[in-house]
Amino acid sequence: MLSSEEEEQLKQACIQAKSNSYSPYSKFRVGASFLFSNGEIVKGANVENASYPAGICAERSAIAIAVNQGLLATESIKAVGVTSDTDNVVSPCGICRQTIREFANLDTPIYMWTSSGAVTVRTLEELLPLSFGPDNLA
Amino acid sequence: MLSSEEEEQLKQACIQAKSNSYSPYSKFRVGASFLFSNGEIVKGANVENASYPAGICAERSAIAIAVNQGLLATESIKAVGVTSDTDNVVSPCGICRQTIREFANLDTPIYMWTSSGAVTVRTLEELLPLSFGPDNLA
Amino acid sequence: MLSSEEEEQLKQACIQAKSNSYSPYSKFRVGASFLFSNGEIVKGANVENASYPAGICAERSAIAIAVNQGLLATESIKAVGVTSDTDNVVSPCGICRQTIREFANLDTPIYMWTSSGAVTVRTLEELLPLSFGPDNLA
Amino acid sequence: MLSSEEEEQLKQACIQAKSNSYSPYSKFRVGASFLFSNGEIVKGANVENASYPAGICAERSAIAIAVNQGLLATESIKAVGVTSDTDNVVSPCGICRQTIREFANLDTPIYMWTSSGAVTVRTLEELLPLSFGPDNLA
Ligand SMILES: [Zn+2]
Ligand SMILES: [Zn+2]
Ligand SMILES: [Zn+2]
Ligand SMILES: [Zn+2]
Repeated sequence: MLSSEEEEQLKQACIQAKSNSYSPYSKFRVGASFLFSNGEIVKGANVENASYPAGICAERSAIAIAVNQGLLATESIKAVGVTSDTDNVVSPCGICRQTIREFANLDTPIYMWTSSGAVTVRTLEELLPLSFGPDNLA
Repeated sequence: MLSSEEEEQLKQACIQAKSNSYSPYSKFRVGASFLFSNGEIVKGANVENASYPAGICAERSAIAIAVNQGLLATESIKAVGVTSDTDNVVSPCGICRQTIREFANLDTPIYMWTSSGAVTVRTLEELLPLSFGPDNLA
Repeated sequence: MLSSEEEEQLKQACIQAKSNSYSPYSKFRVGASFLFSNGEIVKGANVENASYPAGICAERSAIAIAVNQGLLATESIKAVGVTSDTDNVVSPCGICRQTIREFANLDTPIYMWTSSGAVTVRTLEELLPLSFGPDNLA
Repeated sequence: MLSSEEEEQLKQACIQAKSNSYSPYSKFRVGASFLFSNGEIVKGANVENASYPAGICAERSAIAIAVNQGLLATESIKAVGVTSDTDNVVSPCGICRQTIREFANLDTPIYMWTSSGAVTVRTLEELLPLSFGPDNLA
């Protein structure tokens, strides 16, 4: 698990990420963040499209950023965070759980913060049990 | 839960569905089937694309078919089935779990058959706990 | 090109398709139809999702239906139609053009009807010139 | 149009982007780059997934990166570049054209380089004529 300092950094990255959200259709801003084994944090917001299925969720934006920084080639994912502007728990959607599955270990903790700061934590395996992954295609 | 006759029908529909799979890129045929409250069964296979992200999974094909038959406007989903050509458990990917989530109750059973016929059953909630759904946008 | 009777059938199929649209998020109903070489018409509507990128456009629904009827294994696509509830020309989005590209010849006509019935026709190649397709991966 | 220096920078960014490609399934590396009005260049590679439809194309990775740097809120897209490892012209797929459409002007030039360096240039409108965009939902 994370130190309280790491957890706070992950949370603040999520909150900051939201400010870059492009969500004119849903008006639903989401911010995500990934903490890597070397201490780096990468954050992302959702990027919508007039053709809704062409949109990119916050968690997938962050993964794209991390891959393109070369981070995922050398570092492992230590924790994932996500938040929105609502006071309900907003969890990664199924597409995002699948995307995280490609790159993270099953025991990676995923922190979900409500807008008032309450946290819910689940491992990736808890959010996507019995998952379909790279091994299925090998 | 399903009667053994219903379960067998759902399984056979999955197996038949695979014969329509268009999967020249992955060579990974998947068949899915949905049993509705009126006894109807709808089945679908995966439809791939040279631009991989434009592909449509088997479960999503079947949902599209059911919506377009008007079934989802009047009937409820009683059970979901999925199978492939491998002898491992192949579960719905995250996108498909999310798609099923839009239309099915959380306690809907999802049957996963290996190619040799062994079955694993989980409810939708077990496969997509703490899900993001329509309520989150209300 | 189509006979006026075929064109009318394709148009009516699009209009009927819309009635099955599941679009609670955009409130934007789209209906699509495909005419096959054997005279069969397949139609589809858009199927949205609370996680917007998991949605399926009308044209992609129709393609999924056709593949799963085994039509695309034996028949060719003679024409495509699309309509919505607005009086502007609504064309297939880029994802849909890419999906049609996988299965149709480049000279396939695509008919786009406004809600008042005005038609615009373009070939697939005109809508997706210099396309990325199966040949690129061969 | 671009100066020859800008064009060379855009091309080199595409080539460098490819080195971060995560494409174990297609083995098809793609690199994309965007030049912004302030001179900044953002680059991205494709990020695939065992569930193929969950993958993210190179152009969409780059757009996600640019949005998340706040670039698209203040700067405009001056040009787009894309390249792969093959000696054919590889153009943006339909999903990517749709994604670029959301953020770029229709006269934005898109440069496509083969692996041996031959360039083909088209405007966004030439690659996605009669496009579906934000105006259609207004
Ligand atoms: Zn998501
Ligand atoms: Zn799937
Ligand atoms: Zn579309
Ligand atoms: Zn693409």
